[in-house]
Amino acid sequence: MASARYDLSGRTVAILSTHGFEESELLQPMEALREADATVKVISLSSSSDQIRGWADGDWGESVKVDAVVSDVSAGDFDALVLPGGVINPDKLRMDSDAVDFVRAFFEAGKPVAAICHGPWLLAEADVARGRDLTSWASIRTDMENAGANWVDEEVVVDQGLVTSRSPDDLDAFVDKMLEEIFEGIHSGQHT
Amino acid sequence: MASARYDLSGRTVAILSTHGFEESELLQPMEALREADATVKVISLSSSSDQIRGWADGDWGESVKVDAVVSDVSAGDFDALVLPGGVINPDKLRMDSDAVDFVRAFFEAGKPVAAICHGPWLLAEADVARGRDLTSWASIRTDMENAGANWVDEEVVVDQGLVTSRSPDDLDAFVDKMLEEIFEGIHSGQHT
Repeated sequence: MASARYDLSGRTVAILSTHGFEESELLQPMEALREADATVKVISLSSSSDQIRGWADGDWGESVKVDAVVSDVSAGDFDALVLPGGVINPDKLRMDSDAVDFVRAFFEAGKPVAAICHGPWLLAEADVARGRDLTSWASIRTDMENAGANWVDEEVVVDQGLVTSRSPDDLDAFVDKMLEEIFEGIHSGQHT
Repeated sequence: MASARYDLSGRTVAILSTHGFEESELLQPMEALREADATVKVISLSSSSDQIRGWADGDWGESVKVDAVVSDVSAGDFDALVLPGGVINPDKLRMDSDAVDFVRAFFEAGKPVAAICHGPWLLAEADVARGRDLTSWASIRTDMENAGANWVDEEVVVDQGLVTSRSPDDLDAFVDKMLEEIFEGIHSGQHT
């Protein structure tokens, strides 16, 4: 297991998500972070309930407990941020200014951010994709490029604390690099 | 009824859509076009089945019959194009190069295009939004502006044969202007 290589005890990681997250893209990173002894908090919108519903195999799937509402927390409370995909999830998050400001604050602080599938959309919304090497689900490639990103078709792309992947098929590589970047901590090249 | 004001007999209109279309955003325009005596064809992807499933009230809804696959038709077969929303639907369509080329061809020919909600995303993908006044569902505002559009927060925006609206709440105004623009026919200001 990749997680055994990194001791993240004492680190607190936010997973920002709402209804419609791709189930595996939230659960697999969460499990790997907990195995590495990180504290993981699921952060969602005030309009979400205390449980958010995942998406799997083209339909609604399992629910996950929400730990805090994004308007009640700040990037200063966390060491890193994880953004799962699922087309419905970031489509809702990006309309919430607290969620978008929360994402941007991790970049301002140089903290690691890991985004997969449709998750990188939030980077376009927060205007932190400009000049960064990244990947995403293919459908949003044009949006990411129009937001100034250098879009790359690889299973995982690491750019100064920013870790991105394309789909659930890339999860093993994504989780491995996510743990490594969070272990390393602040990256001065992670910026807005 | 607005449709009574426009006689669209002899006109053929394509509705390009796949699974996850917002039910009302396909059905209401289709019904209004048929009431105005237009011929309406539902065009979808080869990967879709002969029925595509709609989305209503946050879950899968009713299905609609597909009349033709996009790779088997061309913009020359139609007088106008309608693009319903629903977040899942254009997210799938924009990854299909035949679908994107089909959309672009209506702009090249100056033919009316009506897009609602997440439908305008296809205009970003086809790179035909540049310099155009339009609206959309709020979540994709940033993507549309990054694609060069002048995004306006109004129930319906008409720009030289391009009709756009924000959500199902705007459907009455959207359908009214859609019928008017299709009735007028070719618009020289509709371009790529």
